[in-house]
Amino acid sequence: MKTMEDLFLHFLRDVYYAERQISKALPKMAKAAESPALKEAFTHHREETQHQIERLQKVFEALGKRAQGVTCEAINGLIEECEELLEEAKEPSAVRDCGLIACAQAVEHYEMARYGALVSWARAAGRHDAVTLLQQTLDEEKKADTLLNQLAEREVTPQAKEAA
Amino acid sequence: MKTMEDLFLHFLRDVYYAERQISKALPKMAKAAESPALKEAFTHHREETQHQIERLQKVFEALGKRAQGVTCEAINGLIEECEELLEEAKEPSAVRDCGLIACAQAVEHYEMARYGALVSWARAAGRHDAVTLLQQTLDEEKKADTLLNQLAEREVTPQAKEAA
Repeated sequence: MKTMEDLFLHFLRDVYYAERQISKALPKMAKAAESPALKEAFTHHREETQHQIERLQKVFEALGKRAQGVTCEAINGLIEECEELLEEAKEPSAVRDCGLIACAQAVEHYEMARYGALVSWARAAGRHDAVTLLQQTLDEEKKADTLLNQLAEREVTPQAKEAA
Repeated sequence: MKTMEDLFLHFLRDVYYAERQISKALPKMAKAAESPALKEAFTHHREETQHQIERLQKVFEALGKRAQGVTCEAINGLIEECEELLEEAKEPSAVRDCGLIACAQAVEHYEMARYGALVSWARAAGRHDAVTLLQQTLDEEKKADTLLNQLAEREVTPQAKEAA
């Protein structure tokens, strides 16, 4: 890894792997959620994730490279933490939903960091096509994080507090 | 894990483990950085991390619990990605520094997600002492992320681009 293009490609592969793992994890999270609004948020974000994967494929194409993932230990760890939560809180509840939201927000934050770096490097390299595609996903991840925040503050945390 | 207090304590232990791992990783990242400004940023953040660990100990104390970590697979994965980067880019360079910044920002984002959830839960529980301590750290993590952004945009990425 010697040039900015090598670095860009490495992180692009990393986030491509990550998005595909997230796409597999989200239906399980939707199934595990007790709150219908949270189920809907996870299901909607799964659909967004499919479009995000397609956008990454377009970025690979623009670079003249094959779309290919590289194992991303960070996303594996983030998803593992979510699975651990579901093991430690076996029954659906507002408390477990709070934990699910926190796990999903950690995933969103990971993606924000990755897409933030990729956008900045694509801009420095003058790759405007890649900037547009990656920025669109970055905006979606930020919005998904904000929606989860609102859901937690308005609905899930107050319910969990009452349940305690 | 049945109550909000159980959930809070679990994530508090998770971030306590994470901060201690970060505290061990930062000196290695400072050593690996080529840019003196980046070395200084990592060294300064290591000092901040020590204070953040002390704040977490105070939160445990306020809850009447022993300060204790629980393995956090997410931070292990994030640190592993950083180590992989140093293996794939063996020599110090501006390109490698760009990668190091991206890895550090992913760690900052993880912490922002974790402290964000903890602050929100502590606030819902009316634990104002914990809110103050955790919010202070959350603000520091956001500031550290902004500083890394500035360093990348102003110094490291332009240098890496010239090197390519």
